[in-house]
Amino acid sequence: MKKRIGVILSGCGHLDGSEIQEAVLTLLAIDRAGAEAVCLAPDIPQHHVVNHRTGKEEEGAVRNVLDESARIARGEITDLKRFDTLHLDALVIPGGYGAAKNLSTYAVKGPECTIDPGVEHAVRSFHDEGKPLGFICIAPAIAACVLGSRKPELTIGNDPATAADLESMGARHVECTVNNAHVWHEGKVVSTPAYMLGPSISEVAKGIDRLIQAVLELA
Amino acid sequence: MKKRIGVILSGCGHLDGSEIQEAVLTLLAIDRAGAEAVCLAPDIPQHHVVNHRTGKEEEGAVRNVLDESARIARGEITDLKRFDTLHLDALVIPGGYGAAKNLSTYAVKGPECTIDPGVEHAVRSFHDEGKPLGFICIAPAIAACVLGSRKPELTIGNDPATAADLESMGARHVECTVNNAHVWHEGKVVSTPAYMLGPSISEVAKGIDRLIQAVLELA
Repeated sequence: MKKRIGVILSGCGHLDGSEIQEAVLTLLAIDRAGAEAVCLAPDIPQHHVVNHRTGKEEEGAVRNVLDESARIARGEITDLKRFDTLHLDALVIPGGYGAAKNLSTYAVKGPECTIDPGVEHAVRSFHDEGKPLGFICIAPAIAACVLGSRKPELTIGNDPATAADLESMGARHVECTVNNAHVWHEGKVVSTPAYMLGPSISEVAKGIDRLIQAVLELA
Repeated sequence: MKKRIGVILSGCGHLDGSEIQEAVLTLLAIDRAGAEAVCLAPDIPQHHVVNHRTGKEEEGAVRNVLDESARIARGEITDLKRFDTLHLDALVIPGGYGAAKNLSTYAVKGPECTIDPGVEHAVRSFHDEGKPLGFICIAPAIAACVLGSRKPELTIGNDPATAADLESMGARHVECTVNNAHVWHEGKVVSTPAYMLGPSISEVAKGIDRLIQAVLELA
Protein backbone atom coordinates (compact mmCIF):
# COMPACT_ATOMS: atom_id res chain seq x y z
CA MET A 1 0.00 0.00 0.00
CA LYS A 2 1.19 3.51 -0.79
CA LYS A 3 2.55 5.55 2.09
CA ARG A 4 0.42 8.63 2.72
CA ILE A 5 2.23 11.88 3.40
CA GLY A 6 0.32 14.87 4.72
CA VAL A 7 1.40 18.22 3.22
CA ILE A 8 0.26 21.23 5.24
CA LEU A 9 -0.15 24.28 2.99
CA SER A 10 -0.49 27.86 4.24
CA GLY A 11 -2.00 29.74 1.30
CA CYS A 12 -0.76 30.33 -2.25
CA GLY A 13 2.22 32.65 -2.78
CA HIS A 14 5.49 33.00 -0.88
CA LEU A 15 4.81 36.46 0.57
CA ASP A 16 1.52 35.62 2.28
CA GLY A 17 1.12 31.86 1.90
CA SER A 18 2.93 28.69 0.84
CA GLU A 19 5.95 29.08 -1.41
CA ILE A 20 4.26 27.75 -4.57
CA GLN A 21 7.35 26.25 -6.18
CA GLU A 22 8.38 24.45 -2.98
CA ALA A 23 4.84 23.12 -2.53
CA VAL A 24 4.64 21.79 -6.11
CA LEU A 25 8.15 20.30 -5.89
CA THR A 26 7.05 18.54 -2.70
CA LEU A 27 3.99 17.04 -4.43
CA LEU A 28 6.17 16.00 -7.40
CA ALA A 29 8.79 14.33 -5.18
CA ILE A 30 6.11 12.42 -3.24
CA ASP A 31 4.41 11.17 -6.42
CA ARG A 32 7.70 10.20 -8.06
CA ALA A 33 8.65 8.23 -4.95
CA GLY A 34 5.45 6.19 -5.27
CA ALA A 35 3.77 7.69 -2.21
CA GLU A 36 0.51 9.64 -1.95
CA ALA A 37 0.34 13.33 -1.02
CA VAL A 38 -2.62 14.39 1.14
CA CYS A 39 -2.88 18.17 1.08
CA LEU A 40 -4.16 19.89 4.21
CA ALA A 41 -4.65 23.47 5.37
CA PRO A 42 -6.35 25.23 8.26
CA ASP A 43 -9.67 26.96 7.54
CA ILE A 44 -8.58 30.38 8.82
CA PRO A 45 -8.17 33.87 7.34
CA GLN A 46 -4.72 34.78 6.04
CA HIS A 47 -2.66 37.14 8.24
CA HIS A 48 -2.83 39.55 5.28
CA VAL A 49 -2.72 39.66 1.47
CA VAL A 50 0.43 40.82 -0.34
CA ASN A 51 0.58 41.87 -4.00
CA HIS A 52 3.39 39.65 -5.32
CA ARG A 53 4.25 42.05 -8.16
CA THR A 54 4.80 45.11 -5.95
CA GLY A 55 5.55 43.36 -2.65
CA LYS A 56 3.06 45.67 -0.93
CA GLU A 57 0.23 44.67 1.40
CA GLU A 58 -3.25 44.98 -0.12
CA GLU A 59 -5.06 46.80 2.64
CA GLY A 60 -8.52 45.50 3.46
CA ALA A 61 -8.12 42.40 1.29
CA VAL A 62 -9.18 39.11 2.89
CA ARG A 63 -8.32 35.59 1.71
CA ASN A 64 -8.80 32.21 3.37
CA VAL A 65 -5.83 29.87 3.87
CA LEU A 66 -7.74 26.69 2.96
CA ASP A 67 -9.35 28.26 -0.13
CA GLU A 68 -6.05 29.65 -1.46
CA SER A 69 -4.13 26.46 -0.67
CA ALA A 70 -6.71 24.60 -2.77
CA ARG A 71 -5.28 26.39 -5.83
CA ILE A 72 -1.98 24.52 -5.46
CA ALA A 73 -3.74 21.22 -4.71
CA ARG A 74 -6.18 21.50 -7.66
CA GLY A 75 -9.07 21.38 -5.19
CA GLU A 76 -7.98 18.11 -3.59
CA ILE A 77 -7.48 19.44 -0.08
CA THR A 78 -8.72 18.58 3.39
CA ASP A 79 -9.45 20.85 6.35
CA LEU A 80 -6.62 20.38 8.87
CA LYS A 81 -9.20 19.84 11.63
CA ARG A 82 -9.76 16.37 10.12
CA PHE A 83 -6.07 15.48 10.63
CA ASP A 84 -6.63 12.64 13.11
CA THR A 85 -8.98 10.81 10.73
CA LEU A 86 -6.59 10.62 7.76
CA HIS A 87 -4.25 7.73 8.69
CA LEU A 88 -1.09 9.48 7.49
CA ASP A 89 2.41 7.99 7.68
CA ALA A 90 4.36 11.25 7.69
CA LEU A 91 3.90 15.01 7.55
CA VAL A 92 5.69 17.72 5.54
CA ILE A 93 5.37 21.51 5.76
CA PRO A 94 6.66 23.56 2.78
CA GLY A 95 7.93 27.11 3.28
CA GLY A 96 6.79 30.57 2.28
CA TYR A 97 5.84 33.37 4.67
CA GLY A 98 2.51 31.61 5.16
CA ALA A 99 4.31 29.19 7.49
CA ALA A 100 5.44 32.21 9.55
CA LYS A 101 2.30 34.35 9.21
CA ASN A 102 -0.65 31.92 8.97
CA LEU A 103 0.53 28.63 10.50
CA SER A 104 2.45 30.49 13.21
CA THR A 105 3.14 34.04 14.38
CA TYR A 106 6.91 33.70 13.86
CA ALA A 107 7.08 36.54 11.27
CA VAL A 108 5.64 38.97 13.83
CA LYS A 109 6.65 37.56 17.23
CA GLY A 110 9.97 35.83 16.47
CA PRO A 111 11.00 33.29 19.12
CA GLU A 112 7.97 34.27 21.25
CA CYS A 113 5.68 32.96 18.49
CA THR A 114 2.63 30.76 18.87
CA ILE A 115 1.54 28.01 16.48
CA ASP A 116 -1.90 27.45 14.94
CA PRO A 117 -3.55 24.88 17.27
CA GLY A 118 -4.24 22.42 14.43
CA VAL A 119 -0.66 22.61 13.18
CA GLU A 120 0.74 22.27 16.70
CA HIS A 121 -1.45 19.22 17.34
CA ALA A 122 -0.38 17.59 14.07
CA VAL A 123 3.35 18.14 14.65
CA ARG A 124 3.31 17.19 18.33
CA SER A 125 1.15 14.09 17.95
CA PHE A 126 3.17 12.73 15.01
CA HIS A 127 6.42 13.35 16.89
CA ASP A 128 5.04 11.58 19.96
CA GLU A 129 3.99 8.61 17.78
CA GLY A 130 7.47 8.36 16.21
CA LYS A 131 6.27 9.35 12.74
CA PRO A 132 8.64 11.34 10.53
CA LEU A 133 8.26 15.06 9.95
CA GLY A 134 9.71 17.23 7.16
CA PHE A 135 10.16 21.02 7.28
CA ILE A 136 11.18 23.12 4.26
CA CYS A 137 12.61 26.66 4.04
CA ILE A 138 11.28 28.78 6.96
CA ALA A 139 8.95 26.01 8.26
CA PRO A 140 11.63 24.65 10.65
CA ALA A 141 10.72 27.66 12.84
CA ILE A 142 7.47 25.77 13.54
CA ALA A 143 9.45 22.66 14.52
CA ALA A 144 11.69 24.73 16.79
CA CYS A 145 8.68 26.27 18.52
CA VAL A 146 6.74 23.02 19.02
CA LEU A 147 9.64 20.62 19.66
CA GLY A 148 12.27 23.00 21.10
CA SER A 149 12.40 21.22 24.45
CA ARG A 150 13.64 18.08 22.64
CA LYS A 151 16.55 20.05 21.10
CA PRO A 152 15.84 19.20 17.43
CA GLU A 153 18.55 19.60 14.78
CA LEU A 154 17.14 21.90 12.09
CA THR A 155 18.23 23.80 8.96
CA ILE A 156 17.12 27.36 8.27
CA GLY A 157 19.62 28.67 5.67
CA ASN A 158 22.48 31.01 6.49
CA ASP A 159 20.89 34.08 8.03
CA PRO A 160 22.53 34.42 11.49
CA ALA A 161 19.53 36.19 13.11
CA THR A 162 17.07 33.50 12.01
CA ALA A 163 19.44 30.75 13.12
CA ALA A 164 19.79 32.49 16.49
CA ASP A 165 15.98 32.62 16.78
CA LEU A 166 15.79 28.85 16.28
CA GLU A 167 18.49 28.26 18.90
CA SER A 168 16.70 30.53 21.38
CA MET A 169 13.64 28.26 21.01
CA GLY A 170 15.80 25.25 21.92
CA ALA A 171 16.76 23.93 18.49
CA ARG A 172 20.28 23.20 17.28
CA HIS A 173 20.87 24.97 13.97
CA VAL A 174 22.61 22.91 11.28
CA GLU A 175 24.30 24.27 8.15
CA CYS A 176 23.01 22.54 5.02
CA THR A 177 23.37 23.31 1.31
CA VAL A 178 20.28 23.97 -0.78
CA ASN A 179 20.67 20.69 -2.69
CA ASN A 180 20.66 18.57 0.46
CA ALA A 181 18.49 17.84 3.52
CA HIS A 182 19.49 17.24 7.12
CA VAL A 183 18.09 14.32 9.13
CA TRP A 184 17.76 14.56 12.91
CA HIS A 185 17.64 10.78 13.32
CA GLU A 186 16.75 10.69 17.02
CA GLY A 187 13.54 12.65 16.44
CA LYS A 188 12.85 11.60 12.82
CA VAL A 189 12.80 15.24 11.69
CA VAL A 190 14.13 16.19 8.24
CA SER A 191 14.70 19.75 7.04
CA THR A 192 16.09 21.56 3.98
CA PRO A 193 16.77 25.29 3.43
CA ALA A 194 15.17 25.57 -0.07
CA TYR A 195 14.45 29.23 -0.93
CA MET A 196 16.00 30.43 2.35
CA LEU A 197 19.15 29.90 0.24
CA GLY A 198 17.89 29.64 -3.35
CA PRO A 199 19.15 30.49 -5.91
CA SER A 200 17.37 28.33 -8.51
CA ILE A 201 14.32 26.09 -8.74
CA SER A 202 16.39 23.08 -9.85
CA GLU A 203 18.69 23.35 -6.81
CA VAL A 204 15.70 23.75 -4.49
CA ALA A 205 14.17 20.66 -6.12
CA LYS A 206 17.26 18.58 -5.28
CA GLY A 207 16.97 19.45 -1.57
CA ILE A 208 13.24 18.71 -1.51
CA ASP A 209 13.80 15.38 -3.31
CA ARG A 210 16.33 14.45 -0.60
CA LEU A 211 13.94 15.51 2.14
CA ILE A 212 11.07 13.40 0.78
CA GLN A 213 13.42 10.43 0.25
CA ALA A 214 14.59 10.69 3.88
CA VAL A 215 11.06 11.12 5.24
CA LEU A 216 9.90 8.00 3.35
CA GLU A 217 12.87 5.97 4.59
CA LEU A 218 11.91 6.90 8.16
CA ALA A 219 8.19 6.15 7.66
CA MET B 1 24.83 32.27 -23.46
CA LYS B 2 21.69 30.81 -21.92
CA LYS B 3 18.65 30.52 -24.15
CA ARG B 4 15.80 32.70 -22.87
CA ILE B 5 12.33 31.18 -22.92
CA GLY B 6 9.30 33.36 -22.34
CA VAL B 7 6.57 31.73 -20.20
CA ILE B 8 3.19 33.46 -20.49
CA LEU B 9 1.17 32.98 -17.30
CA SER B 10 -2.56 33.68 -16.99
CA GLY B 11 -3.16 33.98 -13.24
CA CYS B 12 -2.62 31.54 -10.38
CA GLY B 13 -4.94 28.53 -10.10
CA HIS B 14 -6.26 26.14 -12.73
CA LEU B 15 -9.92 27.22 -12.53
CA ASP B 16 -9.35 30.94 -13.18
CA GLY B 17 -5.65 31.26 -14.06
CA SER B 18 -2.56 29.25 -14.90
CA GLU B 19 -2.48 25.61 -13.84
CA ILE B 20 0.02 26.09 -11.00
CA GLN B 21 1.62 22.64 -11.19
CA GLU B 22 2.11 22.88 -14.97
CA ALA B 23 3.59 26.37 -14.64
CA VAL B 24 6.07 25.30 -11.93
CA LEU B 25 7.00 22.14 -13.85
CA THR B 26 7.68 24.34 -16.89
CA LEU B 27 10.01 26.61 -14.88
CA LEU B 28 11.75 23.53 -13.41
CA ALA B 29 12.26 21.91 -16.83
CA ILE B 30 13.68 25.15 -18.29
CA ASP B 31 16.11 25.62 -15.38
CA ARG B 32 17.21 21.98 -15.44
CA ALA B 33 17.90 22.26 -19.19
CA GLY B 34 20.26 25.17 -18.53
CA ALA B 35 18.00 27.81 -20.07
CA GLU B 36 16.44 30.89 -18.49
CA ALA B 37 12.71 31.32 -17.93
CA VAL B 38 11.30 34.82 -18.40
CA CYS B 39 7.82 34.97 -16.90
CA LEU B 40 5.28 37.25 -18.56
CA ALA B 41 1.60 38.04 -18.13
CA PRO B 42 -0.85 40.63 -19.42
CA ASP B 43 -1.84 43.44 -17.02
CA ILE B 44 -5.59 42.81 -17.29
CA PRO B 45 -8.38 41.83 -14.89
CA GLN B 46 -9.17 38.11 -14.62
CA HIS B 47 -12.34 36.94 -16.40
CA HIS B 48 -13.56 35.99 -12.90
CA VAL B 49 -12.39 34.51 -9.58
CA VAL B 50 -13.19 30.90 -8.66
CA ASN B 51 -12.94 29.42 -5.17
CA HIS B 52 -10.73 26.37 -5.78
CA ARG B 53 -12.09 24.49 -2.76
CA THR B 54 -15.75 24.72 -3.76
CA GLY B 55 -15.34 25.23 -7.51
CA LYS B 56 -17.81 28.13 -7.32
CA GLU B 57 -17.36 31.63 -8.73
CA GLU B 58 -16.74 34.33 -6.10
CA GLU B 59 -19.19 36.96 -7.24
CA GLY B 60 -17.87 40.51 -7.24
CA ALA B 61 -14.28 39.42 -6.60
CA VAL B 62 -11.64 41.07 -8.80
CA ARG B 63 -8.06 39.90 -9.34
CA ASN B 64 -5.41 41.03 -11.83
CA VAL B 65 -3.73 38.47 -14.11
CA LEU B 66 -0.23 40.00 -13.82
CA ASP B 67 -0.45 40.37 -10.02
CA GLU B 68 -1.67 36.79 -9.50
CA SER B 69 0.82 35.32 -11.99
CA ALA B 70 3.58 37.03 -9.95
CA ARG B 71 2.78 34.55 -7.14
CA ILE B 72 4.04 31.65 -9.26
CA ALA B 73 7.06 33.65 -10.50
CA ARG B 74 8.09 34.84 -6.99
CA GLY B 75 7.66 38.44 -8.18
CA GLU B 76 10.03 38.06 -11.13
CA ILE B 77 7.55 38.82 -13.87
CA THR B 78 7.29 41.25 -16.77
CA ASP B 79 4.25 42.94 -18.28
CA LEU B 80 3.52 41.21 -21.59
CA LYS B 81 3.35 44.61 -23.31
CA ARG B 82 7.18 44.68 -23.05
CA PHE B 83 7.41 41.43 -25.08
CA ASP B 84 9.30 42.90 -28.06
CA THR B 85 12.08 44.28 -25.83
CA LEU B 86 13.00 40.99 -24.17
CA HIS B 87 15.12 39.18 -26.81
CA LEU B 88 13.55 35.79 -26.20
CA ASP B 89 14.48 32.62 -28.10
CA ALA B 90 11.22 30.73 -27.61
CA LEU B 91 7.81 31.03 -25.98
CA VAL B 92 5.76 28.58 -23.87
CA ILE B 93 2.19 28.89 -22.58
CA PRO B 94 1.15 26.57 -19.70
CA GLY B 95 -2.46 25.49 -19.30
CA GLY B 96 -5.22 26.12 -16.81
CA TYR B 97 -8.54 27.80 -17.55
CA GLY B 98 -6.69 31.13 -17.46
CA ALA B 99 -5.46 30.34 -20.99
CA ALA B 100 -9.09 29.94 -22.07
CA LYS B 101 -10.62 32.72 -19.92
CA ASN B 102 -7.94 35.43 -19.58
CA LEU B 103 -5.53 34.96 -22.50
CA SER B 104 -8.41 34.10 -24.84
CA THR B 105 -12.18 33.80 -24.82
CA TYR B 106 -12.13 30.09 -25.77
CA ALA B 107 -13.91 28.96 -22.56
CA VAL B 108 -16.89 31.18 -23.43
CA LYS B 109 -16.86 31.46 -27.22
CA GLY B 110 -15.35 28.12 -28.32
CA PRO B 111 -13.99 28.17 -31.90
CA GLU B 112 -15.30 31.74 -32.35
CA CYS B 113 -12.89 32.93 -29.65
CA THR B 114 -10.63 35.95 -29.73
CA ILE B 115 -7.12 36.16 -28.26
CA ASP B 116 -5.69 38.85 -25.95
CA PRO B 117 -3.91 41.26 -28.34
CA GLY B 118 -0.56 40.95 -26.51
CA VAL B 119 -0.71 37.15 -26.58
CA GLU B 120 -1.75 37.11 -30.24
CA HIS B 121 1.12 39.45 -31.15
CA ALA B 122 3.65 37.30 -29.25
CA VAL B 123 2.53 34.03 -30.84
CA ARG B 124 2.16 35.40 -34.36
CA SER B 125 5.43 37.35 -34.41
CA PHE B 126 7.48 34.43 -33.04
CA HIS B 127 5.89 32.07 -35.53
CA ASP B 128 6.65 34.49 -38.38
CA GLU B 129 10.28 34.76 -37.19
CA GLY B 130 10.65 30.94 -37.11
CA LYS B 131 11.07 30.81 -33.33
CA PRO B 132 9.69 27.76 -31.51
CA LEU B 133 6.46 27.83 -29.52
CA GLY B 134 5.23 25.42 -26.82
CA PHE B 135 1.60 24.97 -25.72
CA ILE B 136 0.55 22.90 -22.71
CA CYS B 137 -2.84 21.39 -21.71
CA ILE B 138 -5.66 23.65 -23.05
CA ALA B 139 -3.24 26.33 -24.36
CA PRO B 140 -3.09 24.72 -27.84
CA ALA B 141 -6.56 26.29 -28.35
CA ILE B 142 -4.68 29.63 -28.53
CA ALA B 143 -2.33 28.19 -31.17
CA ALA B 144 -5.28 26.88 -33.18
CA CYS B 145 -6.99 30.27 -33.10
CA VAL B 146 -3.90 32.33 -34.04
CA LEU B 147 -2.21 29.90 -36.44
CA GLY B 148 -5.21 27.92 -37.73
CA SER B 149 -4.70 29.04 -41.34
CA ARG B 150 -1.30 27.27 -41.30
CA LYS B 151 -2.92 23.97 -40.27
CA PRO B 152 -0.80 23.33 -37.14
CA GLU B 153 -0.57 19.85 -35.61
CA LEU B 154 -1.64 20.16 -31.96
CA THR B 155 -2.44 17.98 -28.94
CA ILE B 156 -5.43 18.68 -26.68
CA GLY B 157 -6.03 15.41 -24.82
CA ASN B 158 -8.80 12.97 -25.66
CA ASP B 159 -12.04 14.95 -25.35
CA PRO B 160 -13.71 14.65 -28.79
CA ALA B 161 -15.58 17.99 -28.54
CA THR B 162 -12.44 19.96 -27.70
CA ALA B 163 -10.50 18.20 -30.46
CA ALA B 164 -13.32 19.05 -32.90
CA ASP B 165 -13.12 22.70 -31.80
CA LEU B 166 -9.41 22.78 -32.66
CA GLU B 167 -10.05 21.21 -36.05
CA SER B 168 -12.82 23.71 -36.80
CA MET B 169 -10.22 26.48 -36.23
CA GLY B 170 -7.99 24.86 -38.86
CA ALA B 171 -5.66 22.77 -36.68
CA ARG B 172 -4.97 19.06 -37.09
CA HIS B 173 -5.56 17.28 -33.78
CA VAL B 174 -2.90 14.73 -32.78
CA GLU B 175 -3.30 12.01 -30.15
CA CYS B 176 -0.47 12.12 -27.61
CA THR B 177 0.05 10.43 -24.24
CA VAL B 178 0.49 12.57 -21.12
CA ASN B 179 4.17 11.59 -20.77
CA ASN B 180 5.05 12.77 -24.27
CA ALA B 181 4.93 15.90 -26.45
CA HIS B 182 4.15 16.28 -30.14
CA VAL B 183 6.34 18.37 -32.46
CA TRP B 184 4.87 20.04 -35.54
CA HIS B 185 8.25 20.36 -37.20
CA GLU B 186 7.17 22.52 -40.15
CA GLY B 187 5.92 25.28 -37.84
CA LYS B 188 8.20 24.64 -34.84
CA VAL B 189 5.21 24.22 -32.54
CA VAL B 190 5.34 21.70 -29.66
CA SER B 191 2.36 20.67 -27.53
CA THR B 192 1.57 18.24 -24.70
CA PRO B 193 -1.79 17.33 -23.11
CA ALA B 194 -0.68 17.56 -19.42
CA TYR B 195 -3.72 17.85 -17.11
CA MET B 196 -6.14 17.55 -20.07
CA LEU B 197 -5.27 13.87 -19.49
CA GLY B 198 -3.66 13.74 -16.03
CA PRO B 199 -3.71 11.66 -13.94
CA SER B 200 -0.61 12.42 -11.85
CA ILE B 201 1.89 15.22 -11.42
CA SER B 202 4.86 12.97 -12.23
CA GLU B 203 3.31 11.89 -15.56
CA VAL B 204 2.46 15.51 -16.42
CA ALA B 205 6.08 16.42 -15.57
CA LYS B 206 7.39 13.89 -18.12
CA GLY B 207 5.34 15.46 -20.92
CA ILE B 208 6.42 18.98 -19.97
CA ASP B 209 10.09 17.89 -19.79
CA ARG B 210 9.75 16.51 -23.34
CA LEU B 211 8.08 19.72 -24.53
CA ILE B 212 10.84 21.95 -23.12
CA GLN B 213 13.52 19.63 -24.53
CA ALA B 214 11.91 19.82 -27.99
CA VAL B 215 11.44 23.60 -27.81
CA LEU B 216 15.12 24.08 -26.89
CA GLU B 217 16.25 21.79 -29.72
CA LEU B 218 14.27 23.94 -32.16
CA ALA B 219 15.55 27.25 -30.71
